[in-house]
Amino acid sequence: MDNDSSLRTYKLLVAYEGTDYSGWQIQPSKRTIQGELQGALCEIAGETISVMGSGRTDAGVHAMGQIASCRLRWPSSPGQLAMALNTKLPPDIVVRESVEVVDDFHPIRDALRKRYRYQLQIGGYASPFERRFRWRLKRRVVIEDMQMAAGMLVGEHDFASFQATGADRKSTVRTVFDCDVFTQFEDRESDLEMLAIEVEADGFLYNMVRNIVGSLVQIGYGKQDPTWLQEVLAARDRSIAGPTAPAHGLFLMQVDYSNEIYRFEK
Amino acid sequence: MDNDSSLRTYKLLVAYEGTDYSGWQIQPSKRTIQGELQGALCEIAGETISVMGSGRTDAGVHAMGQIASCRLRWPSSPGQLAMALNTKLPPDIVVRESVEVVDDFHPIRDALRKRYRYQLQIGGYASPFERRFRWRLKRRVVIEDMQMAAGMLVGEHDFASFQATGADRKSTVRTVFDCDVFTQFEDRESDLEMLAIEVEADGFLYNMVRNIVGSLVQIGYGKQDPTWLQEVLAARDRSIAGPTAPAHGLFLMQVDYSNEIYRFEK
Repeated sequence: MDNDSSLRTYKLLVAYEGTDYSGWQIQPSKRTIQGELQGALCEIAGETISVMGSGRTDAGVHAMGQIASCRLRWPSSPGQLAMALNTKLPPDIVVRESVEVVDDFHPIRDALRKRYRYQLQIGGYASPFERRFRWRLKRRVVIEDMQMAAGMLVGEHDFASFQATGADRKSTVRTVFDCDVFTQFEDRESDLEMLAIEVEADGFLYNMVRNIVGSLVQIGYGKQDPTWLQEVLAARDRSIAGPTAPAHGLFLMQVDYSNEIYRFEK
Repeated sequence: MDNDSSLRTYKLLVAYEGTDYSGWQIQPSKRTIQGELQGALCEIAGETISVMGSGRTDAGVHAMGQIASCRLRWPSSPGQLAMALNTKLPPDIVVRESVEVVDDFHPIRDALRKRYRYQLQIGGYASPFERRFRWRLKRRVVIEDMQMAAGMLVGEHDFASFQATGADRKSTVRTVFDCDVFTQFEDRESDLEMLAIEVEADGFLYNMVRNIVGSLVQIGYGKQDPTWLQEVLAARDRSIAGPTAPAHGLFLMQVDYSNEIYRFEK
């Protein structure tokens, strides 16, 4: 990191609809969230500015609360940086907030907790309004069984069984603080139910939430007992868990940091 | 109408996201809902089949419960007609239900009531997930004042002030059964509120809901008192009412018919 004192580090709170993007990470000749943010920053700063995210989201995955950092010379307030970026960004990417943080803020290393939501539609018709934001299951699920199983994931566990094959993390042990399955909305007339599964943890393995959701759906369908999830955890073997749920139901909701990263009182 | 006894009339319950369409009504070289439905019917029936809607929706307007009729020879069940159409339709148009109705069913003439919803977002950030489905107001509104004013529209009134300029209906008198302003969802942390305005009436003039919404927002902003809406009604003059709310917040929710239209017990 350079020590030019007129450079400031900003923490951006970013929401995006991932439908039309090849994921977060910049790639040549593909539309990516990181690419769009860097493009917007280049337009307003007149030079190439790199943007780091708290984590990569896959193609089709959405975010209500992704965190990104960038370091630049900006003559106005942090809030005006967010506004300036939004005038350059397409409508499916929005900088909700910008704050100044300590010079060496690192959105991956400094992240304390993350929260993801996975949205499901059970029954009903293939709603044109939900198709980008929910995995639609045609058959009923037993929510109580899914809730019971979800509770078994809370705590410190080795989540190797829920890590995508081929991923290679030093440790596959993570602490899950919360894993909730709940009804968001019910419409009895259309015979549909909107479900969400939220998972909060100190970190996530690659595809961890989508693999947890795929496994919980097996339990909801009655193909497996709730206690099967403990066997899956104990096996530390990806081939034991359920299939990976599709990307378009997943939302990165929130990333938490220590208050020490803020340069001024927030 | 021909009397070929193998022809049957079907009533289709249709949902669509209007974002990428030039409205309901078929137009040469434009994407329209009616055009897509007729195209899908032509593919499955092998001949041109005309589709009539309960009313035209404008470009960008959505429907959860549009009603359409079509008359064709179909060898399978009405439910299978819906399924066959859905395999041919794009994902932003869905036939939720198909039922057989009396030969001379006419979705405009036979409609008894219609219900529209208009969705608003007050405050918060320009959510990528709501941008197609809500009119976003940056300033706060006083919901109680909007509710009080909305109540004044209930009953039989001359709604000429809320009819688009240039529209030419024989009578501008309509009966509004319901006009409700309510909170759908509130997020205090993001300082945003999702509002909906629902209007049910025996019929609507062109742009009536969008003009009512534009006027209620003037009241919500405190630019007009709630009682001003009675003056607007009494004036029978479009230039007195508020501006027309944008199309993308509007949903055709439901169209009601007498049970006599059904060919079999529903």
